Amino acid sequence: MAVKPTLNVGLIGTGFMGKAHVFGYSSAQCVFDLPVRFNLHTLADVSEAAARSSARQFGFANVTTNWRDIVDDPEIDIVSITAPNALHKEMALAAIAAGKHVYCEKPLAPLAQDAREMAEAAEAANVRTQVGFNYLCNPMLQLARDMIAAGELGDIRGYRGIHCEDYMADASGLFTFRHDPAGGGALADIGSHALATAEFLCGPITRVMGDCVTMIPTRSDAKGGQRSVEVDDIGRAFVRFENGASGSIEGNWIATGRKMQHDFEIYGTKGALAFSQERFNELHYFSTADAAGRQGFRRIEAGPDHAPYGLFCVAPGHQLGFNDLKAIEVAGFAQAIAGERDEPFNFRAGLRIQHLVETIHRSAHEMNWLEA
Amino acid sequence: MAVKPTLNVGLIGTGFMGKAHVFGYSSAQCVFDLPVRFNLHTLADVSEAAARSSARQFGFANVTTNWRDIVDDPEIDIVSITAPNALHKEMALAAIAAGKHVYCEKPLAPLAQDAREMAEAAEAANVRTQVGFNYLCNPMLQLARDMIAAGELGDIRGYRGIHCEDYMADASGLFTFRHDPAGGGALADIGSHALATAEFLCGPITRVMGDCVTMIPTRSDAKGGQRSVEVDDIGRAFVRFENGASGSIEGNWIATGRKMQHDFEIYGTKGALAFSQERFNELHYFSTADAAGRQGFRRIEAGPDHAPYGLFCVAPGHQLGFNDLKAIEVAGFAQAIAGERDEPFNFRAGLRIQHLVETIHRSAHEMNWLEA
Amino acid sequence: MAVKPTLNVGLIGTGFMGKAHVFGYSSAQCVFDLPVRFNLHTLADVSEAAARSSARQFGFANVTTNWRDIVDDPEIDIVSITAPNALHKEMALAAIAAGKHVYCEKPLAPLAQDAREMAEAAEAANVRTQVGFNYLCNPMLQLARDMIAAGELGDIRGYRGIHCEDYMADASGLFTFRHDPAGGGALADIGSHALATAEFLCGPITRVMGDCVTMIPTRSDAKGGQRSVEVDDIGRAFVRFENGASGSIEGNWIATGRKMQHDFEIYGTKGALAFSQERFNELHYFSTADAAGRQGFRRIEAGPDHAPYGLFCVAPGHQLGFNDLKAIEVAGFAQAIAGERDEPFNFRAGLRIQHLVETIHRSAHEMNWLEA
Amino acid sequence: MAVKPTLNVGLIGTGFMGKAHVFGYSSAQCVFDLPVRFNLHTLADVSEAAARSSARQFGFANVTTNWRDIVDDPEIDIVSITAPNALHKEMALAAIAAGKHVYCEKPLAPLAQDAREMAEAAEAANVRTQVGFNYLCNPMLQLARDMIAAGELGDIRGYRGIHCEDYMADASGLFTFRHDPAGGGALADIGSHALATAEFLCGPITRVMGDCVTMIPTRSDAKGGQRSVEVDDIGRAFVRFENGASGSIEGNWIATGRKMQHDFEIYGTKGALAFSQERFNELHYFSTADAAGRQGFRRIEAGPDHAPYGLFCVAPGHQLGFNDLKAIEVAGFAQAIAGERDEPFNFRAGLRIQHLVETIHRSAHEMNWLEA
Repeated sequence: MAVKPTLNVGLIGTGFMGKAHVFGYSSAQCVFDLPVRFNLHTLADVSEAAARSSARQFGFANVTTNWRDIVDDPEIDIVSITAPNALHKEMALAAIAAGKHVYCEKPLAPLAQDAREMAEAAEAANVRTQVGFNYLCNPMLQLARDMIAAGELGDIRGYRGIHCEDYMADASGLFTFRHDPAGGGALADIGSHALATAEFLCGPITRVMGDCVTMIPTRSDAKGGQRSVEVDDIGRAFVRFENGASGSIEGNWIATGRKMQHDFEIYGTKGALAFSQERFNELHYFSTADAAGRQGFRRIEAGPDHAPYGLFCVAPGHQLGFNDLKAIEVAGFAQAIAGERDEPFNFRAGLRIQHLVETIHRSAHEMNWLEA
Repeated sequence: MAVKPTLNVGLIGTGFMGKAHVFGYSSAQCVFDLPVRFNLHTLADVSEAAARSSARQFGFANVTTNWRDIVDDPEIDIVSITAPNALHKEMALAAIAAGKHVYCEKPLAPLAQDAREMAEAAEAANVRTQVGFNYLCNPMLQLARDMIAAGELGDIRGYRGIHCEDYMADASGLFTFRHDPAGGGALADIGSHALATAEFLCGPITRVMGDCVTMIPTRSDAKGGQRSVEVDDIGRAFVRFENGASGSIEGNWIATGRKMQHDFEIYGTKGALAFSQERFNELHYFSTADAAGRQGFRRIEAGPDHAPYGLFCVAPGHQLGFNDLKAIEVAGFAQAIAGERDEPFNFRAGLRIQHLVETIHRSAHEMNWLEA
Repeated sequence: MAVKPTLNVGLIGTGFMGKAHVFGYSSAQCVFDLPVRFNLHTLADVSEAAARSSARQFGFANVTTNWRDIVDDPEIDIVSITAPNALHKEMALAAIAAGKHVYCEKPLAPLAQDAREMAEAAEAANVRTQVGFNYLCNPMLQLARDMIAAGELGDIRGYRGIHCEDYMADASGLFTFRHDPAGGGALADIGSHALATAEFLCGPITRVMGDCVTMIPTRSDAKGGQRSVEVDDIGRAFVRFENGASGSIEGNWIATGRKMQHDFEIYGTKGALAFSQERFNELHYFSTADAAGRQGFRRIEAGPDHAPYGLFCVAPGHQLGFNDLKAIEVAGFAQAIAGERDEPFNFRAGLRIQHLVETIHRSAHEMNWLEA
Repeated sequence: MAVKPTLNVGLIGTGFMGKAHVFGYSSAQCVFDLPVRFNLHTLADVSEAAARSSARQFGFANVTTNWRDIVDDPEIDIVSITAPNALHKEMALAAIAAGKHVYCEKPLAPLAQDAREMAEAAEAANVRTQVGFNYLCNPMLQLARDMIAAGELGDIRGYRGIHCEDYMADASGLFTFRHDPAGGGALADIGSHALATAEFLCGPITRVMGDCVTMIPTRSDAKGGQRSVEVDDIGRAFVRFENGASGSIEGNWIATGRKMQHDFEIYGTKGALAFSQERFNELHYFSTADAAGRQGFRRIEAGPDHAPYGLFCVAPGHQLGFNDLKAIEVAGFAQAIAGERDEPFNFRAGLRIQHLVETIHRSAHEMNWLEA
């Protein structure tokens, strides 16, 4: 049988997202009939023990404690970056310089100016890039986008998008890199997802008015000291879209009890959609075309009618999981590398989100509406 | 048996809210063991036919087409005002001047300065007043307020409150008094409910940043002409509370598919509450004190533990309806008239909401944070 | 104005259901434009104090401790019976003999043979009767029935109906009249609602196979003794309908945590309905006619499209409460008395439910399918 | 680094379940740190084209059109059987005879007597076996089981379990092997899942009373002829558990609109659980120990507290998908092969379910309670 070209993967990082990348590579080629195959070539982690143990589990042939070995290895085609945010830029620029395709976790970089350098470098080098905004890979979000694009909701008038969790709700939690003024805060960390979803569905945001609040002003650091926290625990924005709609956004990491409240509601002249990531295999759809007395929000359950769900499961109602979204993300990246499509969410798109986050921060600070 | 004092009621208006008031009077004295009885004395409507027909149905002894007959009638103790908003002030001031207690539908008046006159007149005349913010009468909102006051949620950090419906979503709907720049718009009409609930639960709002949008810029009037619409179809605000929390508010009357989305979420250091008027006999409660692996939002169903539910029904789960909220409202008013308690939501409170609405309008117009 | 004929009401009982009847009379004439008016004439309770206090609150002119005074009073037109079940028969037969219309709480009588006597007496005397199966008065159940009758679901194939609560879940709860072998048990007490709903929606049940279980075999009585419990804590049945469908029924009063789980699901060739009394202002509807990829259960919220909701409230989404169902029940009874319609659920219908309950009991005992 | 032993896998079948097995092998070793590694050795399908194409996609080294090649290959350690049910027995017995571990999709065999032969052969040969009752692998079902075992619900009194879908609701759908009287029908196909879950949670069922109904009596076959359908479209049972509880079960494949209604409710003396596979990352828990006025069903969202969720994702709320359940299933099988635990659901357990299905069929036919 005809052999598919193999792409050697070098992965930097063995944590939550490192594992998610491996899961993505592994599942993507099983679920999709991709134009390429992935070979898990080298795994890098600063801890040799972690690198060895994960390599054994994940099936990587080689390990290193120096991520530059991956960048320098001419056999490696793709570099997956799941290291802390502050390192993304240096790693990505090195990989791009070495002519490798780069799959980088979000946020692309702490600051938009860094993200811009990365996007421009990738474009100049003509390599493919991917940023891990995995929630966009959900077939139900694609369905929502398709319905909007097809005019099923009519003209869009109003939008509400939030991403709220509670992983920073405990005031005794330690100061981490996520609290670093350079790129940290709830808006950057998870509000960015709400922004990505908003533009994915409704198109460009043109103006923003921000509101950023720090509710836990100090946190202990690992050494027992007290650190002042300057980043937002809650970041909100009023927004205007190019399509004429207005809306609001909230990122909140102190929302006690919320684990994955990445939700949106969209109201158009002919219908509406409501979605919650808490039940992300459903999309709720209201149509004004339904008969009087029979109208209501319809709970559409994910199924083979909603590509690429059918590649995972031929029957509706079985549901995708979070890691499946990673597989869809990897599949899109592979197809882009093979030239079959554009990158679904490349560095340029990642830069866009960074830019929105920073504009909202600046707007909140200046207490003024700003162009986005 | 001992006879309760009877209060004669004069009702102005026979529409939706007129009927709701009758329902309230009628049910309140059946459900509660009130210190007074109500006698439906006189019904006023500009249409004599409507007045006669409704009086026959509701059981009023007398009718008039001139509301001043009610104000002038020395037998009448309470004046219920359910006429169009623009008339509230004149009617209420006349009733107060005649020494009557006044129960007025919301909004109290188109403009805060009018509402202020009304509140001051009532206080000077020492009559009892009540404004119809009926959603606050829900036992589940009282439960939420009690839980917050008792510290069950810890310190409140974040709030989201909305009131969204779709009764103005159809752009071919006619221009009505609700589109009048003096007191009209979504924020005033229903966003006011979201504001009332926010302060009912979390205490005073101290600062606001508004965002008001008109999406349907013209509407036909009844005579076939085109009228420009200046009021907001969607009104939003960022808010700060005296208790240190921050939040957001939205009033939206073009939210296609939504019939009664008066919802809130409150996040504190020890717990959270989520509520939707779409299912208003439930309150969802998250407690960080629950055991690990057993935590989750708890769906508390209204029951006799949540006064005054038990007066309506001795068993839980049977549910109150909208009109029952009116009965609770009337009962509170009756108790205030009898001196047993303060008015639950008097003209001063109605003024407060008007003031908040106008401050948000001004803030949106000036694109500036304002003290509230 | 033209005066409506007045019907004098005598009410026996001042408990939960006594109050609900008063609420029903009071609201019905406010909400509906009924052909008659009700006058709360006489209230009977074995406790004079209770009778006096309730009469004062509810507005009855007279009280008595002897229910026969009501039956004997020629001024009284309607007798409302909310006394313990064991007394229903004697009271109803006396009232019927006196030519009065009778509104009796469910169950009509402990045994079907008693209910039959009552139904036959009423028919012979040509008085109107009503049994309090209030859940059937919900506009959403009427909607479901209308949809089925109109063929919107196609041919009905499957049915699941339950009524589960937890008011007997506590094994330390005392032995009450509800545990009396003559007419007691979960199936009779609340499973009867599930049966009434099943036939209301799908037509006659023709065969049953019962399964009745006692899980708490003894209970203390009020005097500290131990009583053996013979009635069912859980009663189940397989059923066959005349329309060809099959289904199942469950009545369960030890369903810990359930307060009002009166739920059904109906599956037809063209669609399906799902309903829960826990959210009884909603009906969930699936249609196979919806477009591929857009199908789903639609949450229809009660509104003016669903009569008689619009008489309670002109706007959708405001919701009816339990007591409103009582008002609808009373309105139907009043219209039947005035000759405008047949009784919605008369003694003959009450007998039918008793008969079904007993047949299921017998079937469970004999472990055999029985004709119903 | 230490090398894990590799198990060579031979897979028979390339359809829905074939792909699910590949997904399971692939994910299991990425997610879990398993004691073995899997090597996808040979793929068998009667269609050479399908075999080649799938092998290319899934990464199998070899293909065959003759499943016996897999059984005969001494290099192969595990045989995965996802062929039509009627072939399970022959394939499994051959694989067992060759000393291979066997992972077989459900139902294990059309008839219990066949399943018994298979279970006994496996036990005699001392190979490990696994049947694909994947829903049991859900961490939330494990949580439910653990809570029950730990007494958190007190004594179990009542159970309702269903598995309803609509894939046979269309009467114009063709006659398939699933309609074959030997092993076909809704109860066998999906009611079996409801039975497996019931015993997984509550322990052995001791007695059953069945009710099996055929609603679509004839179906076209692929050749245009009409075939009489004898198997059940809806299969129900009353059940008794060894622990003293009673309950009911339904399997229904004509439940219009339902895609994955594998639901249960369990009522105990101290609490209750409610679950729906439609939202299978949630478990709803009611505790009578919660404070008065604060009780309610708690929506527990799957998270790292619920093993093995944490191996898939370190943060709660991200959710597992159907294919993840397959990975958990494979992981359990791998651990059993390595001697680290017993098989989670082996051929003996598969036989048990077949036996229950047949007993219910016989009970329905004989209209009698039967020992199970």
